[in-house]
Amino acid sequence: MLAHRLIERKRDGGRIEPGEWRALALAYAKGHVPDYQMAALLMACFLRGLERSETAALTEAMLLSGDRLDLEYLGRPRIDKHSTGGVGDKVSLVLAPLVASLGVAVPMMSGRSLGHTGGTLDKLESIPGFRTNLTLAEAKAQLETLGCAMMGQTPEIAPADKKMYALRDATATVESIPLIASSIMSKKLAEGLTGLVLDMKRGSGALIQDLDRVLELADVMINLGTDHGCPVVALVTAMDRPLGRACGNALEVEEAIAALKGEGPDDLMDVTYALGAEMLVLADVCDDSASARVELENAIATGRAAERFQRIIEAQGGNPGVVDDPAALPQAAEVEIFTAARRGFVARVEPKTIGRGIIEMGGGRTRVEDAADPSVGLVITARPGDWVEAGEPLATIFARDRTGIGSGRHALRAAIVIADEAEPPLPLISHRITSRGVELYSA
Amino acid sequence: MLAHRLIERKRDGGRIEPGEWRALALAYAKGHVPDYQMAALLMACFLRGLERSETAALTEAMLLSGDRLDLEYLGRPRIDKHSTGGVGDKVSLVLAPLVASLGVAVPMMSGRSLGHTGGTLDKLESIPGFRTNLTLAEAKAQLETLGCAMMGQTPEIAPADKKMYALRDATATVESIPLIASSIMSKKLAEGLTGLVLDMKRGSGALIQDLDRVLELADVMINLGTDHGCPVVALVTAMDRPLGRACGNALEVEEAIAALKGEGPDDLMDVTYALGAEMLVLADVCDDSASARVELENAIATGRAAERFQRIIEAQGGNPGVVDDPAALPQAAEVEIFTAARRGFVARVEPKTIGRGIIEMGGGRTRVEDAADPSVGLVITARPGDWVEAGEPLATIFARDRTGIGSGRHALRAAIVIADEAEPPLPLISHRITSRGVELYSA
Repeated sequence: MLAHRLIERKRDGGRIEPGEWRALALAYAKGHVPDYQMAALLMACFLRGLERSETAALTEAMLLSGDRLDLEYLGRPRIDKHSTGGVGDKVSLVLAPLVASLGVAVPMMSGRSLGHTGGTLDKLESIPGFRTNLTLAEAKAQLETLGCAMMGQTPEIAPADKKMYALRDATATVESIPLIASSIMSKKLAEGLTGLVLDMKRGSGALIQDLDRVLELADVMINLGTDHGCPVVALVTAMDRPLGRACGNALEVEEAIAALKGEGPDDLMDVTYALGAEMLVLADVCDDSASARVELENAIATGRAAERFQRIIEAQGGNPGVVDDPAALPQAAEVEIFTAARRGFVARVEPKTIGRGIIEMGGGRTRVEDAADPSVGLVITARPGDWVEAGEPLATIFARDRTGIGSGRHALRAAIVIADEAEPPLPLISHRITSRGVELYSA
Repeated sequence: MLAHRLIERKRDGGRIEPGEWRALALAYAKGHVPDYQMAALLMACFLRGLERSETAALTEAMLLSGDRLDLEYLGRPRIDKHSTGGVGDKVSLVLAPLVASLGVAVPMMSGRSLGHTGGTLDKLESIPGFRTNLTLAEAKAQLETLGCAMMGQTPEIAPADKKMYALRDATATVESIPLIASSIMSKKLAEGLTGLVLDMKRGSGALIQDLDRVLELADVMINLGTDHGCPVVALVTAMDRPLGRACGNALEVEEAIAALKGEGPDDLMDVTYALGAEMLVLADVCDDSASARVELENAIATGRAAERFQRIIEAQGGNPGVVDDPAALPQAAEVEIFTAARRGFVARVEPKTIGRGIIEMGGGRTRVEDAADPSVGLVITARPGDWVEAGEPLATIFARDRTGIGSGRHALRAAIVIADEAEPPLPLISHRITSRGVELYSA
């Protein structure tokens, strides 16, 4: 009867009280509230919205549905990064070992790809043998030795959120600011962090495209963090084109390894350094972002960061040889160069079209239970603003077979728009948001 | 993927096309669309609304999810009545045998009680032995011999609606005009009727309380009927107080039997005659409602109507002796008179409070699987507008035990408001609606 009453109230625009959210989240996690009632409630929440106090109560309720890690024993700052998701976004793979190599504990709990966006877990699992399903005990031990664990959400962490997120995905109730904010923050707050950095994607390939709504989402999450004693800094970054060149699980791991060796594309490095600098400052390892950037560049130049990634891979059962020899990653059976059909400016590279194309090629999933081929993907060297001649290479297609090559070609043809005039892309990093407000970003 | 796309579109205020409604209803009836997706869609429909064309398409889709009765072979007009539900509403029990005794086939498919309102099936099943789960073959045979079958929705009839109605009940998505209209009309149109009369309840005890929305609902249903070649007439009747005196399953059967013998309370008789007259005129058995009313009164005076009910009871396995001796109905263990605490006018008799009180006493259900005690109920002789002295009997409580008596007393104390001034009750029958429009009702 509780669920029915709450659905009815939210349906009519009313407020659900903190104790009610708590009872509901617990009952749902235990299976006492059926999915169909939760689905109706989620749609009512999506359309009626939640007050700030309700978002806080829901976050707290999902957090309390599971355990909260106590990582005090590490005696080190614990900082994580979360991205709202995009195409080609392999920042976590570079950032986690990099920042961990500088004395910060990074308990990185990630998700799987869904829809057109990639997922860190799927990327990591393209490394032969790599296990992402660490137990809490394994993760804690590894955080002590290596300062970093790269893993999925364990059953102990916010189980109500885990169940609710899968339901939202199936019921078209994902793109709601309060529901996104409470889902992310309940998991992140359960990690026992001393600070959190958010990579808020905006643009046509982002979950939320509109800048005002991105800023609102950041603000809600920063407040939730602050309320729980976890300072949060958010950067708004561009997702009107893929980040870096590689899109596809193994290809992105390869690019991330290159980045850890100082050979990453500029945009990937810039976003990685910007987020890393915020992490180091939040951790009190550095005083300001200029000195933090020097530390980060140094960790890459000396090989410390790449070595840390190698040790993490080894600790999690993966083949550490991939760091020295990326050919140890799964290789596509068919490879083909994609060239420009005409001369002109690269006006756009549409990330959604790229992401969907990779799914079409068998390299992503439309449902959680689908299997993805890690070798499949697209490496796009053309960037918005580039001048290209007809016949000039724009990208490389990596596919399972000729049909996959065809799908890749089809996706690239639709995604890469060549025009007589260049279109200005979004600035790579545009805004910085803290509990004190929004400012334009300057490196 | 179909369901997800449709949820998303309706969520954003878009329209679902006829072919999509059809595919969805069929997939849902077959279990290919899970309840949680349908629940999210229903909430989106509740909050975003449906266009008229969508309501028509949904009705058609649910109708086509099952069989449509072909009752042409009866060679008689087939007219049914549907009430939007209320407290003390035993009209169907009187009306079906009464109209059937005048040469009209009445294929009456009814529902169970849910929430504070009663259900015809539960009332009928208080007659010892009475079976409401007739097969379609049994119902057809009985319509031929007796002109009437009183039964539940068979599995062949609008299975998508049957499943969806149970889901709406659990997800607080009942009180939506397009969803109510399509649910009722998909079932009624499947009965293969030549006409339908609607009893549209309004007032505090009705599903929809506000007159404007009641008129809108009637209009939507009348249009749906007209589109399918089934003329519909609706009367708006009062549900700001219970109809008749008896509330509770066996007590209502007893009152219905009294009504069939010409001893029913005035309000019950007036509503029954008004609806019956519309049925006879729709059936072309009578030219106008004045002559129809004479026929109806005559069928009662001669005992034809009561005899028809007796034969229906017998055909459906019930004890026909209840018509001659109502003591054969289940009898309550405890009976107590409820008297007025003060003198004054009976200002209100709140039907919802009465309905909920009977559930509290064990005579109704909060969930479909609950068992109700048929003997339990309240017989309320006080009517709004009556002047009463302190200590004067207002009602009789029929309960299982002393606790039930206490619950009944509690409900009556809350429901029957005595004040210094009378409050004007709603007119018993206020409006008549046809495809030509709304008119004030005059008998």
